Amino acid sequence: MAKLDKKIKAVIEIDHGSGGKKTSELIGEIKKILKFRSSWKNTDDDGAVFDLNGKKIVFTTDAYIVNPIFFPGGDIGKIAMCGTINDLAMMGAEPIGVSLSLVIEEGFPKTDLKKILRSINDISQKEKVPIVTGDTKVMEKGKLDKIEITTAGIGIAKHILPNYGAKPDDAVISSGDLGEHAAALLAERFNYKTKIKSDCKPLVGEIKSVARYLTSAKDPTRGGISAVLNEVSERSKVKIILEEDSLPFKKEISAIADLFGIDKFALPSEGRFVATVPACYAKKVVARLKKFDRKAKIIGSVEKGRGVYLKTAIGSVRKIELPEGKLIPRI
Amino acid sequence: MAKLDKKIKAVIEIDHGSGGKKTSELIGEIKKILKFRSSWKNTDDDGAVFDLNGKKIVFTTDAYIVNPIFFPGGDIGKIAMCGTINDLAMMGAEPIGVSLSLVIEEGFPKTDLKKILRSINDISQKEKVPIVTGDTKVMEKGKLDKIEITTAGIGIAKHILPNYGAKPDDAVISSGDLGEHAAALLAERFNYKTKIKSDCKPLVGEIKSVARYLTSAKDPTRGGISAVLNEVSERSKVKIILEEDSLPFKKEISAIADLFGIDKFALPSEGRFVATVPACYAKKVVARLKKFDRKAKIIGSVEKGRGVYLKTAIGSVRKIELPEGKLIPRI
Repeated sequence: MAKLDKKIKAVIEIDHGSGGKKTSELIGEIKKILKFRSSWKNTDDDGAVFDLNGKKIVFTTDAYIVNPIFFPGGDIGKIAMCGTINDLAMMGAEPIGVSLSLVIEEGFPKTDLKKILRSINDISQKEKVPIVTGDTKVMEKGKLDKIEITTAGIGIAKHILPNYGAKPDDAVISSGDLGEHAAALLAERFNYKTKIKSDCKPLVGEIKSVARYLTSAKDPTRGGISAVLNEVSERSKVKIILEEDSLPFKKEISAIADLFGIDKFALPSEGRFVATVPACYAKKVVARLKKFDRKAKIIGSVEKGRGVYLKTAIGSVRKIELPEGKLIPRI
Repeated sequence: MAKLDKKIKAVIEIDHGSGGKKTSELIGEIKKILKFRSSWKNTDDDGAVFDLNGKKIVFTTDAYIVNPIFFPGGDIGKIAMCGTINDLAMMGAEPIGVSLSLVIEEGFPKTDLKKILRSINDISQKEKVPIVTGDTKVMEKGKLDKIEITTAGIGIAKHILPNYGAKPDDAVISSGDLGEHAAALLAERFNYKTKIKSDCKPLVGEIKSVARYLTSAKDPTRGGISAVLNEVSERSKVKIILEEDSLPFKKEISAIADLFGIDKFALPSEGRFVATVPACYAKKVVARLKKFDRKAKIIGSVEKGRGVYLKTAIGSVRKIELPEGKLIPRI
């Protein structure tokens, strides 16, 4: 019976897509099946890297199923564009082209589609990243919730910014306050009144201005900083200590997280990054980032060891685990 | 009132995704909004082309929402892999890497997911094209019909095989019999008994063996040869004449098309291509293609003019229009 139960239970669950422990496990299972190895590098990073005549081509993709599709500070089109060019930027690459694949529910209003396309075009024009190829499919009414967008992007990099380069004695910095994207969507979803808007924006300029000093960089999207800093810790083989006094969360974000019973460290942002940088460059990097966002700051440090920890004001330490359990789907 | 009615009606319809006239119109509207122009070429083709240090990078994407997801001759994973590497092959490019974006419905059986991933891996290993990057998202139960896959692909080409190079006096060839993919899916969907299997397969080797002789090549997926030959005719500014005596349809395919009231010229294939070739090379090209599929043959010719026409055995001529009206969604 136990075996039968297990078989019955082997289905995809919502948390398999929420960016926490279950997502890592599912991706592990997927990678076990997709066995063909090649000369591509960084295939465990935000984008894979291919060397072509001395140039590094970076390739990335993401599917967007946010709910609601329009929210304060953006819409599904803006996120799809920003998410993909940010993944390239996080790798140290200059985005050169994006593909746009739309799956639309029958009966979806054309006015909404045009609004979404105009958001995509705004980012495309502003960042000078063209949409170069695409596909458009339609699902029968009731077979898809409104619209799903998948973007893939190609970028070119001189030097790759990896997710495994953090070193003991590095400082950990945040490019601004975190969690506002998730908080804005949650508030919109549950009709909670707040002035918080999604932080969704392109990060190409910001990261370019400091990339040369960084040892690692990640945008804390799905799973928030608890997911990405655990990834940096594991892949760089270091311990990361965050200082409670310096946490990059607005009071209102902490309040919204508490209200919805969600760990604020797991709240996704869509226009921020966290990075590690040798301590000697930390102040310079923060000063440069403050030109883009005055909330940029040092939030912690790197030590020998493993794992991510929070050091409270009174000196106690607690572990920040890979997010698990109650997470936020479709954010 | 008329204006109001029009506003109410402006929604996405199933036929906007079926590869015919309505799809062309929708893509036209989308392209009008996405204005940013760049140094990419062939952005109206199966893949966009970027010159990098003398190498041509080809970039393509497709969303797959086939129903049913398992069918005689393949599954959604096999199609997603073949479709994307075939789009690269049709451009004359060697596929070097594919991205895999999965959107899965909550409750989807893991055994089915693994079956799909094994199909993807089979093609990946056989064709030596790695899956290099990806994304996995989960939709709540009832918000998506089982699974949606978007693949994007990068290829490298020495010479681009365009969709606008057909010339008067070229022969039109087909790499095999057409429409079997659509017929197999329709039969499976409506419980109609047939031995027809999907023709889904990679075309990289086939196209490579003859690419140097071709003036244009397209795989007749959505919208079948009526869609792709009309595209070649329009973009190459030529008239295409098909000979009724030489049509590449098995009797059973014509019968299934008639049974379901669908124009056989609009039936999609997923492992065939049609191409134009100077008449002097036509026999050599067909002979090479016969090594892969003995049904490869000359099916028509190119003349001055515009449009696609069918010449019957008794000499009458009828126009083959871009498919419109009753089409097959999710094929």
